[in-house]
Amino acid sequence: MDSIDRLIELALDEDLGSAGDITTNATIGAQARGRACFLAKAPLVVAGLDIAKRVFDRLDARCLLTCHVKEGDAVAAGQRFATIEGPYRALLTGERTALNFLQRLSGIATATRRAVEALDGTGCQLLDTRKTTPGWRALEKAAVRTGGGHNHRFGLFDGVLIKDNHIEAVGSIAETIRRTRAATHHLLRIEVEVESMAQVEEALAAGADVLMLDNMDLDAMCAAVRHIDGRALTEASGGIRTDRLRAVAETGVTVISMGAITHSAGSVDISLDVQASD
Amino acid sequence: MDSIDRLIELALDEDLGSAGDITTNATIGAQARGRACFLAKAPLVVAGLDIAKRVFDRLDARCLLTCHVKEGDAVAAGQRFATIEGPYRALLTGERTALNFLQRLSGIATATRRAVEALDGTGCQLLDTRKTTPGWRALEKAAVRTGGGHNHRFGLFDGVLIKDNHIEAVGSIAETIRRTRAATHHLLRIEVEVESMAQVEEALAAGADVLMLDNMDLDAMCAAVRHIDGRALTEASGGIRTDRLRAVAETGVTVISMGAITHSAGSVDISLDVQASD
Amino acid sequence: MDSIDRLIELALDEDLGSAGDITTNATIGAQARGRACFLAKAPLVVAGLDIAKRVFDRLDARCLLTCHVKEGDAVAAGQRFATIEGPYRALLTGERTALNFLQRLSGIATATRRAVEALDGTGCQLLDTRKTTPGWRALEKAAVRTGGGHNHRFGLFDGVLIKDNHIEAVGSIAETIRRTRAATHHLLRIEVEVESMAQVEEALAAGADVLMLDNMDLDAMCAAVRHIDGRALTEASGGIRTDRLRAVAETGVTVISMGAITHSAGSVDISLDVQASD
Amino acid sequence: MDSIDRLIELALDEDLGSAGDITTNATIGAQARGRACFLAKAPLVVAGLDIAKRVFDRLDARCLLTCHVKEGDAVAAGQRFATIEGPYRALLTGERTALNFLQRLSGIATATRRAVEALDGTGCQLLDTRKTTPGWRALEKAAVRTGGGHNHRFGLFDGVLIKDNHIEAVGSIAETIRRTRAATHHLLRIEVEVESMAQVEEALAAGADVLMLDNMDLDAMCAAVRHIDGRALTEASGGIRTDRLRAVAETGVTVISMGAITHSAGSVDISLDVQASD
Amino acid sequence: MDSIDRLIELALDEDLGSAGDITTNATIGAQARGRACFLAKAPLVVAGLDIAKRVFDRLDARCLLTCHVKEGDAVAAGQRFATIEGPYRALLTGERTALNFLQRLSGIATATRRAVEALDGTGCQLLDTRKTTPGWRALEKAAVRTGGGHNHRFGLFDGVLIKDNHIEAVGSIAETIRRTRAATHHLLRIEVEVESMAQVEEALAAGADVLMLDNMDLDAMCAAVRHIDGRALTEASGGIRTDRLRAVAETGVTVISMGAITHSAGSVDISLDVQASD
Amino acid sequence: MDSIDRLIELALDEDLGSAGDITTNATIGAQARGRACFLAKAPLVVAGLDIAKRVFDRLDARCLLTCHVKEGDAVAAGQRFATIEGPYRALLTGERTALNFLQRLSGIATATRRAVEALDGTGCQLLDTRKTTPGWRALEKAAVRTGGGHNHRFGLFDGVLIKDNHIEAVGSIAETIRRTRAATHHLLRIEVEVESMAQVEEALAAGADVLMLDNMDLDAMCAAVRHIDGRALTEASGGIRTDRLRAVAETGVTVISMGAITHSAGSVDISLDVQASD
Repeated sequence: MDSIDRLIELALDEDLGSAGDITTNATIGAQARGRACFLAKAPLVVAGLDIAKRVFDRLDARCLLTCHVKEGDAVAAGQRFATIEGPYRALLTGERTALNFLQRLSGIATATRRAVEALDGTGCQLLDTRKTTPGWRALEKAAVRTGGGHNHRFGLFDGVLIKDNHIEAVGSIAETIRRTRAATHHLLRIEVEVESMAQVEEALAAGADVLMLDNMDLDAMCAAVRHIDGRALTEASGGIRTDRLRAVAETGVTVISMGAITHSAGSVDISLDVQASD
Repeated sequence: MDSIDRLIELALDEDLGSAGDITTNATIGAQARGRACFLAKAPLVVAGLDIAKRVFDRLDARCLLTCHVKEGDAVAAGQRFATIEGPYRALLTGERTALNFLQRLSGIATATRRAVEALDGTGCQLLDTRKTTPGWRALEKAAVRTGGGHNHRFGLFDGVLIKDNHIEAVGSIAETIRRTRAATHHLLRIEVEVESMAQVEEALAAGADVLMLDNMDLDAMCAAVRHIDGRALTEASGGIRTDRLRAVAETGVTVISMGAITHSAGSVDISLDVQASD
Repeated sequence: MDSIDRLIELALDEDLGSAGDITTNATIGAQARGRACFLAKAPLVVAGLDIAKRVFDRLDARCLLTCHVKEGDAVAAGQRFATIEGPYRALLTGERTALNFLQRLSGIATATRRAVEALDGTGCQLLDTRKTTPGWRALEKAAVRTGGGHNHRFGLFDGVLIKDNHIEAVGSIAETIRRTRAATHHLLRIEVEVESMAQVEEALAAGADVLMLDNMDLDAMCAAVRHIDGRALTEASGGIRTDRLRAVAETGVTVISMGAITHSAGSVDISLDVQASD
Repeated sequence: MDSIDRLIELALDEDLGSAGDITTNATIGAQARGRACFLAKAPLVVAGLDIAKRVFDRLDARCLLTCHVKEGDAVAAGQRFATIEGPYRALLTGERTALNFLQRLSGIATATRRAVEALDGTGCQLLDTRKTTPGWRALEKAAVRTGGGHNHRFGLFDGVLIKDNHIEAVGSIAETIRRTRAATHHLLRIEVEVESMAQVEEALAAGADVLMLDNMDLDAMCAAVRHIDGRALTEASGGIRTDRLRAVAETGVTVISMGAITHSAGSVDISLDVQASD
Repeated sequence: MDSIDRLIELALDEDLGSAGDITTNATIGAQARGRACFLAKAPLVVAGLDIAKRVFDRLDARCLLTCHVKEGDAVAAGQRFATIEGPYRALLTGERTALNFLQRLSGIATATRRAVEALDGTGCQLLDTRKTTPGWRALEKAAVRTGGGHNHRFGLFDGVLIKDNHIEAVGSIAETIRRTRAATHHLLRIEVEVESMAQVEEALAAGADVLMLDNMDLDAMCAAVRHIDGRALTEASGGIRTDRLRAVAETGVTVISMGAITHSAGSVDISLDVQASD
Repeated sequence: MDSIDRLIELALDEDLGSAGDITTNATIGAQARGRACFLAKAPLVVAGLDIAKRVFDRLDARCLLTCHVKEGDAVAAGQRFATIEGPYRALLTGERTALNFLQRLSGIATATRRAVEALDGTGCQLLDTRKTTPGWRALEKAAVRTGGGHNHRFGLFDGVLIKDNHIEAVGSIAETIRRTRAATHHLLRIEVEVESMAQVEEALAAGADVLMLDNMDLDAMCAAVRHIDGRALTEASGGIRTDRLRAVAETGVTVISMGAITHSAGSVDISLDVQASD
């Protein structure tokens, strides 16, 4: 079972328990059918339609989702952007879980879109981080792409990022890079977190492929980028907020990573208008 | 495996993949030990210490967490509230996942505490809702209790809540209650969502045990509570914000449920200061 | 996977192992088709047709079950009540497991029907208990409903039942109820097990919603019901046998719970007459 | 996870759900400890002590079971045969599940013991069948051994038993045996179900190793055994009841298989007397 | 999930991780379709077509495998023996895993065929052993049958094989057989490993059904077979190589078991020629 | 559960089924203890000691493995390199599975060591490939490291390798690289499989980081390396055998990948000498 199915199973298990939706099962006949529309209560970028579909599918394979927009489209407040039809019980039982997924993922796509627009024309990419909701990594990374952002490494296993703790434990940037190069495969670049010009210099000398300029102010970042002068890729990171994005990009960094687009995006308001079929 | 272990497994699987933390494994010896302090970067109510512990335990059973505060204690910005010691690799590998859990859960406890304080002295209980992060129900409900709130039903299986869609499908409040009573066991009360005085009256007449006053303004809610006059418990629900809480409570409702304490609490800022042991 | 699928998987795993039905696979061609009839060898109430279907489905999705009666119908000895058609191997391989399910569940429905008939006209409901076969809770509770009975709480999680051990540990009925009320949500009633009139009085005073009259003789039960006089629901429980049911109901209790309909129902005799197709 | 752990997990999941034992958790402190005695309410043969232990272990590893008898010992009504000590919550939460296991398994051991005693001195073995509770095969087969019986094949995978349906589909006993011999390994004997002397003869001629004398009356069985005269092992099967056992054995059959010791054994009455520790 | 599905899941999980085939997903559109031919690079006996099919099915249920030969057919170098069509991404993503299965299983079938041919006309069966790749037992045993060999017991649970360690622990062959007979069901024969004529004699006297002549040279084996003279089945075992097979068979043993056909068969060379559809 | 535990579970499930090791359980008492030595029957490099330990641990946690050599040590024929002590049943039951793991993994380490020695002094690294036994990726990659080799990417998810099929589907190397760069994160290098000097040139121009020189003869490889002249890393791949390794390395390629060290390593002969304890 893939990780998204495992999360959906967890979500339905916790909401249904072994006894199921006792209110709906008591009141709605097993044969009744219904239809429901997803309605944006505020302007938003839609993300997670496929998850909503999988939630209802898992409850009852006869549910059918029709999307009136594409994943990543911006919709206005009041717009109905998708319709789900099927057994009425499944619609009522799945409503909350589907919305809980859709509201958070659309929130991330919406926040990402806003950030990406702030970078428009700078040539600088917006990346996410590993500050995602535990259990939701794949979903949230997809929502970032949906919003127009790019993904950083997926996890600890598919990219090398040497942080201050690694360097401190080993003793020097050079030796840390050497050990990492020896132990990882030749298709991986090596990124090093640096906080000062001295560290920039040391990392470049040791052959770092990417430098993470961590928590630098704009002047320091400008100076670092100029000094590096294309000898390594650069990533701005640390406490980046949307209103500072453009200025950061203008320092010339290659990419900017921003945890807030996942950990602080917030839910957007979506409702599901359910109706029994005629 | 309980639902929390399944979520932790999902979280570590997504971050570690099959290849693990390649940077840490390349640079830190398997025997090295370290110690790390959880540090509040802003005032917050601590929640989730046990989850953080379980994350590190799962990585390496030799990790030992020492808490300097209790779950639910308020800590000041800059306060170190827990220390984790153990194999240095496990500390670095688990840092992000542990923080991702702790920041969200402490965020919920902090938001709940603020809401509960707004109700101080009113005798009205603050409840959560089912608007929780899919997969996180048990954790977020515990964080609400940690913050001083109370839990509503856990899911669809352990409480009866008749909503407008159920009533509309059945045709009347009375028949909906009758069917529900017949199909559910005698230890469950029956709550009915009502939006008007007419519905209040109909639900009372049909023997509802609890009335959810949904999206009513303060005047309507006051009138409803007065009219009900103890013949049923009352729950205020729908778009409740912290600044309106006290006024809602003063209408005399029994409980107030508030989705925002889970779906919009936001992460609070916590860091983990890691050091290799001497 | 839901709990019933987990049980079916367990049942087939234990019967098939990794090597499968070696006799059938050695003797019957993979293409052969067959048909088989479920035949009641004694009068019984049919329950579990859907489980039988799921057993065969899991072995081979091409199996097709046709039911000649509805779940809950009474059938006579000698009556063929359902036909399964499909790959002959699947019919032979699944026969024993399907029958093992069907015989026990129909046994429960049959026993329940007999008990419910004993209560006919009394207005008193017959409930099951938690004395079910471990792993079979959902199936056996459904069989009770099929037989015309009602379900008590599903498990420990969806209903509050304070027993003597809880009271003794806490010290008083009043304090036990108080703690329970504080810790559980407002949609749950609180039931208290009582054994004497003094306890009845104490529980009523403390606001119990339901009283379980445990192991009382008929006179004591009568007196208790009269004394309670509608201030709480009442449940008769403890060593109830079918021949005493009507007398118990006539004491005026709201419901009677009876473990014997699940733990002592016994299998009813059903056979599967298998034939290779023409 | 072995099949018994899977069944225990299923049993606890269905009883605890995601919210757990809400009554006990509300009333009993997490630190309280208790002790409880398993008490036979009727004479019985004890079986399933290890399962009871595993149930409590899984709830809380600090539970400690002390057995005052051995698995398979006969105990008198009123006898306390085991003591469990540990966290009081775990004792109350696990009580029903542990008893549900223990009562059924002891019921099987008790019924088996009675049947085995009926065969005393005949040299004929008592076997179980595949008519076990789905999901409980390993447990019930162990309870049969505990009661002094022997096990037939575990499932369809570890023994060859050619039934009438196999023979009918293939066309002749000889060809059925030939195919089976070709497809199964050389460590397996081949048993054939026979209903007439003609079939006995045909099966012997085709080299059957074991003959199941199915639903034969005593005279036919005697005649068959005499005719077979040691050329094959013999198994009496079909509707065997305890009161006929000795007569069946005296026909000279090698073994008797009896479904009733598992499918109709019934629960025996056991209680758990729980006390908070001093 | 059956053991083969569990292995396929494991295989795809390890190759795809949570991020999937990043190269293919980056370069090939989700709608593109393709076709690919399995091509033998050397003469071989085909085995594992169904596994290859299941690998692609699991990636994308729209994949369709067409086989131009049957399982067990010998194909020449250069022969295209099967075609897979479907979404192009699935073909590229599944290629390596499908080939890894197919090459090993065809290797086993090919080695088995060679061994079976060496026995042609002797009437002696070739058996596999438990020296299979952990996790692959069912697949490798099927490949042995595909190659024309027979299977020994599946595992430790469906056949009795008394080895020197058992005998040594118990003290004598006779007592070891006695204990085994008492503890296992009557459909199982008992095989005993013997290394000398004295042991042959002792095992026969104790009623062994099958004798494994372990690591005997040809003369000893001849003598043993002659001495046994049909009183038990015989199995030659231990370091058997293809070039010795015929000589071993000519000693008159019933079966020969040979670990090398599974543990040392080696992969055979197969490629998958993938093409985008026109 | 990590992938190695899943494989071990699969291996033990297939060997033990639900009925377990019936021969050992029938003959050896549950209290008996034993000791067994792993003995090399030929010179080999030891790999997989930890897996052997986990196999026995899973059977019985009281088993204790003592290693007389380190993982990766070369041992001579006849050398005892590890001792396992514990319950005698577990030793006999786990013997075959533990050996099946150990023989294959030591075979890989031994083959790798031989290949690495052939490269001694050339500065060229030996890499494995994805041609591993499905389900065994992590184990076999660890055995390669144990033998002194390096690992290529773990799977399809943690490295970009553009093959001829990708290029053909997209239309050009340049566009394929462009799409890949856009879709993957900045910590990944891009490797391109090239077969001619024209492709080398095109890939370099498009910014490839690594070139896989696929199935080139030595002269072509020399020419390619000279032409590339450090502008990209180089990997020799395709049908590499140990006797050609040194010549390939001397062309100046950065790394050589070799499928044969995993898919054709073959088992090495190891036995387990088991003895009951005194």
